[in-house]
Amino acid sequence: MSKLTRILLTLMTFCLMFTVSLAQVVEDFKPSAVNQPGREYPQVNSEGRVRVQISAPGANYVQLDIGAVKYDLVKDENGVWIGESAPQDEGFHYYQLNIDGASVPDPGSLYFYGAGRWGSGVEIPAHDQDIYAIKNVPHGQVREHFYFSETNQNTRRCFVYTPPCYNENTNKRYPVLYLQHGGGENETGWSAQGRAGFIMDNLLAEGKAKPFIIVMDNGTWSRPRTADGERREGPWPPTGWADGFRNTLINDIIPMIDTNYRTLADQKNRAMAGLSMGAMQTRTITLANSDVFSHVGMFSGGSISPDDIENNPDFMNNVKLLFISFGSREVESGRYNMGADPKANVEELKKKGMDAHYYVSPNTAHEWQTWRRSFYQFAQLLFQN
Amino acid sequence: MSKLTRILLTLMTFCLMFTVSLAQVVEDFKPSAVNQPGREYPQVNSEGRVRVQISAPGANYVQLDIGAVKYDLVKDENGVWIGESAPQDEGFHYYQLNIDGASVPDPGSLYFYGAGRWGSGVEIPAHDQDIYAIKNVPHGQVREHFYFSETNQNTRRCFVYTPPCYNENTNKRYPVLYLQHGGGENETGWSAQGRAGFIMDNLLAEGKAKPFIIVMDNGTWSRPRTADGERREGPWPPTGWADGFRNTLINDIIPMIDTNYRTLADQKNRAMAGLSMGAMQTRTITLANSDVFSHVGMFSGGSISPDDIENNPDFMNNVKLLFISFGSREVESGRYNMGADPKANVEELKKKGMDAHYYVSPNTAHEWQTWRRSFYQFAQLLFQN
Repeated sequence: MSKLTRILLTLMTFCLMFTVSLAQVVEDFKPSAVNQPGREYPQVNSEGRVRVQISAPGANYVQLDIGAVKYDLVKDENGVWIGESAPQDEGFHYYQLNIDGASVPDPGSLYFYGAGRWGSGVEIPAHDQDIYAIKNVPHGQVREHFYFSETNQNTRRCFVYTPPCYNENTNKRYPVLYLQHGGGENETGWSAQGRAGFIMDNLLAEGKAKPFIIVMDNGTWSRPRTADGERREGPWPPTGWADGFRNTLINDIIPMIDTNYRTLADQKNRAMAGLSMGAMQTRTITLANSDVFSHVGMFSGGSISPDDIENNPDFMNNVKLLFISFGSREVESGRYNMGADPKANVEELKKKGMDAHYYVSPNTAHEWQTWRRSFYQFAQLLFQN
Repeated sequence: MSKLTRILLTLMTFCLMFTVSLAQVVEDFKPSAVNQPGREYPQVNSEGRVRVQISAPGANYVQLDIGAVKYDLVKDENGVWIGESAPQDEGFHYYQLNIDGASVPDPGSLYFYGAGRWGSGVEIPAHDQDIYAIKNVPHGQVREHFYFSETNQNTRRCFVYTPPCYNENTNKRYPVLYLQHGGGENETGWSAQGRAGFIMDNLLAEGKAKPFIIVMDNGTWSRPRTADGERREGPWPPTGWADGFRNTLINDIIPMIDTNYRTLADQKNRAMAGLSMGAMQTRTITLANSDVFSHVGMFSGGSISPDDIENNPDFMNNVKLLFISFGSREVESGRYNMGADPKANVEELKKKGMDAHYYVSPNTAHEWQTWRRSFYQFAQLLFQN
């Protein structure tokens, strides 16, 4: 056997082994925790693969579209299509089906608002899922609250979490966290995908957090239109991207919450945090309004630099706590750092005497498991001093 | 021309006119009020036709499935399928798309729980839609409330509407209505499809109803399983169909509500009502427990007969108000009367001295517009004496 032949054979063996390992799927699939009642599919296995199934006897092709990858399904003799994805990270993922070119929700899953649409979600069991499990502990309430906004001249909706003790002593007042979703999401995200209410219920039951009210509103903001209905020109994202929501938050939402709930209505009892777009809004709004907020959290959306502090000296004096976080895969890619080094920024601010925190969620990307964990960490630090 | 020829020609002319009138669609379609944000389809025209559109370039056939009829869509040169239904009744309707045999939600609409699944809904503008419109009036809150049920040994969820004035005077106590959904629906139905909160907000703003709390829980009940996991045998629907939920309602839900909300916790301030399956549950439960409820509403699910009263003499003495309603198309078909004549029953009970009411929703069937109108009528009668 020539040297070349041996090399070729070795290479072929490696290729074969690789193909076999790709094809091997551990057959311990169970229905996802966020399936519709009684639905067997989608299912998830111990590797984190997602298997879907749908009856479409007349279809030419069906795909599972998850994590920006499309996986072809295979049709059985009854016209039922089935197939699975590569392993996914722990936690929650959006996905959809593609039936002959039509992108549609999977009829088996519950639906969540993300990527600008109501669509399917699937839950990969996580090693730390206990932090957001539904337990037999006292539960807070999540209130759907409609109110008229003078700034927007329309009726808006927010969700307000009140802690379990809120109804016990009706004289007690509470601090408030304004908690914002990401781009393409809305005011339902932190409760449904983020499970913020269950995380708080569990933290409170274990005495790990102070009780506070959480306000989850809609931070989506479009550039105003001209008289002709055209969007006004300017850079994208526009400065107003945060400013537009800032006016609504400062002038409408906060006064409405302070009127309708038993809040501690001052700066030292008011926090703002958000994920991705919501983190960037939190950055812009709290840098400009550190007289309104004392505790600041930014999950997967940039950081506060020593330059920012220099340009906004009140921020250093007014803000009691700064929390910056990312998923480890985001740290590796550097995609949501906004060109800065968030860890170095936090170290610098600490040296300047700020109570600044930096957290990295292990083995997660720009996704909800990062934000659930970030909120779990952040909530324990809030309103402690 | 012979007499026969003339008759045939006349018949053919009529057939032709009928065909032409079928094909004529009024082109004044507008996006449905319950579309996802920014979505142009589904649309509805002034005749009440529903037009859907979906891109599915590789599909062999696509259908709109609404009101138990499937309508074929037509593909354009870009692979976009479009088509419309026959005129539908005013109000809310469930529907779905069929893409090459796969029944899926329409990505354009919001999703609602009905027929045992989360699926698409569309709204046909109604002449009386003002009663459930979102207006700039004080709004109550709809609270998502998780609680542990001893009867079921699991964590359950209900939604609780508190009126706008609930947060103003924190000493005031309120009567409570327990309001049940229909078969295949769940605890989200009365808020989302029924718009019960907006109906109450509007009634209260106009001074047309007394403020009360509304509890919307999940009345779905399956026959318990044997040790082998098999459903226990018995007639369907089982007696326990109402009894199973009755135990949860009487032993878990009512005490939980009376503990957590400022209720007037006595029989004369407690009502029960429901639609379809929920009406039949209301019937069974209030006949057996007229010591617990004083006001009773049954929408599209049977009635209370003089025989019922004879067999449950306490009901006559204890119940202050009985409200029975149907859609006019249900009255015509007689399908949900449970073999009785509800109108005659109500007349009989009135003669016996009961404050009994009979309401028929014009031009509607077994559908949400009937139940919105029924609730609108019933709410104005509640807790007045």
